[in-house]
Amino acid sequence: MNIGIFGTGIVGRTLGSRLIDVGHSVKMGSRTQGNANALEWVATAGDQATEGTFEDAAIFGEVLINATNGEGALAALTSAKAENLANKTVLDVTNPLDLSHGFPPSLSVSNTDSLGEQIQRAFPDAHIVKTLNTTNCAVMANPQSLPEMHNAFIAGNNDEAKQKTRDLLQDFGWPDEWIIDLGDITASRGTEAWIHLWLRLMQHFGDANFNLHVVRP
Amino acid sequence: MNIGIFGTGIVGRTLGSRLIDVGHSVKMGSRTQGNANALEWVATAGDQATEGTFEDAAIFGEVLINATNGEGALAALTSAKAENLANKTVLDVTNPLDLSHGFPPSLSVSNTDSLGEQIQRAFPDAHIVKTLNTTNCAVMANPQSLPEMHNAFIAGNNDEAKQKTRDLLQDFGWPDEWIIDLGDITASRGTEAWIHLWLRLMQHFGDANFNLHVVRP
Repeated sequence: MNIGIFGTGIVGRTLGSRLIDVGHSVKMGSRTQGNANALEWVATAGDQATEGTFEDAAIFGEVLINATNGEGALAALTSAKAENLANKTVLDVTNPLDLSHGFPPSLSVSNTDSLGEQIQRAFPDAHIVKTLNTTNCAVMANPQSLPEMHNAFIAGNNDEAKQKTRDLLQDFGWPDEWIIDLGDITASRGTEAWIHLWLRLMQHFGDANFNLHVVRP
Repeated sequence: MNIGIFGTGIVGRTLGSRLIDVGHSVKMGSRTQGNANALEWVATAGDQATEGTFEDAAIFGEVLINATNGEGALAALTSAKAENLANKTVLDVTNPLDLSHGFPPSLSVSNTDSLGEQIQRAFPDAHIVKTLNTTNCAVMANPQSLPEMHNAFIAGNNDEAKQKTRDLLQDFGWPDEWIIDLGDITASRGTEAWIHLWLRLMQHFGDANFNLHVVRP
């Protein structure tokens, strides 16, 4: 499947490489064609890796992944153009981190709203699915790297888009029973807020190589 | 040990009963002596159960537990009087839920502050330890009721108070290795924010009988 990824940081490159490894074709989009990160990634990720603008990636992808930083998300999707997002599944893996006051960051939107909802409101014809923002990109892309069961979450308004997201998560290695559907896009408030605890755990452990498992009877 | 509990709701009564079961003496405090919930609890919880005002409970307890609702926490502790909290370990198990706009609630303080920090600032001579606010009171009081390992968190500024909290959690049935020390009281921002995700999970599962386990290599 053709997948467009917005963002050339570590998250976009890690997810892009993994998707190519499992048989997909990926175009990485950034503000300008020929972004240095994107070119370096294309050079190492194999024949199915290409790069271009946000708009190029949006046109290319049957499914899209927003892997920009939270601050740049709305601008990136605006640059990709609403008509290129319409009726497409857009995985949003970002968190609205506000690093302007040091570490740990706060969130630039929280509590009664979320970045997932902001994006859905800005692009009402796109099918936004908030997912994978609850863990580090190495775990997102290779969940079997942890030794026990743990969970991913999906939240969105469109059931077909959520099924496509489940399928893509399974390609990454997430068994279907590890994926918890939290309901509509407002549940992004829950998964984005978890980052506050995630950040404290990262400080405690000294690395980001962990995830949560919801234990039930 | 003599333990004072603030709050006569389901959390206070569940924790109080469990503490008596494992050998402690508990005085449950509320705004007025003779609160109906408190009297009913005293009648069923055994010889080591007593009740009184917030101040009575504060004077009685070597260790104190704030199990009011979040909205009433500061008023309850004010009523208990700062001099009765001074140099004591005060477990704060509350969350600042704002239910005024329906379900799921938002938080009345979040992101760049927390109720745990507000309480510590208001009572600088007390040793506030934020703990157990990340799960349902049935799990707080009996963690072995879940079939697998899961985690409790502690956050506070005083190491001796955190050790006393660990000891009390072990009395509830939390093995020491299940307890994660997140650092100072500002980490309350993390454990309180988790409630946003906890609430969505409760909606998904239809009950509150779950907790998180942090999975690591």
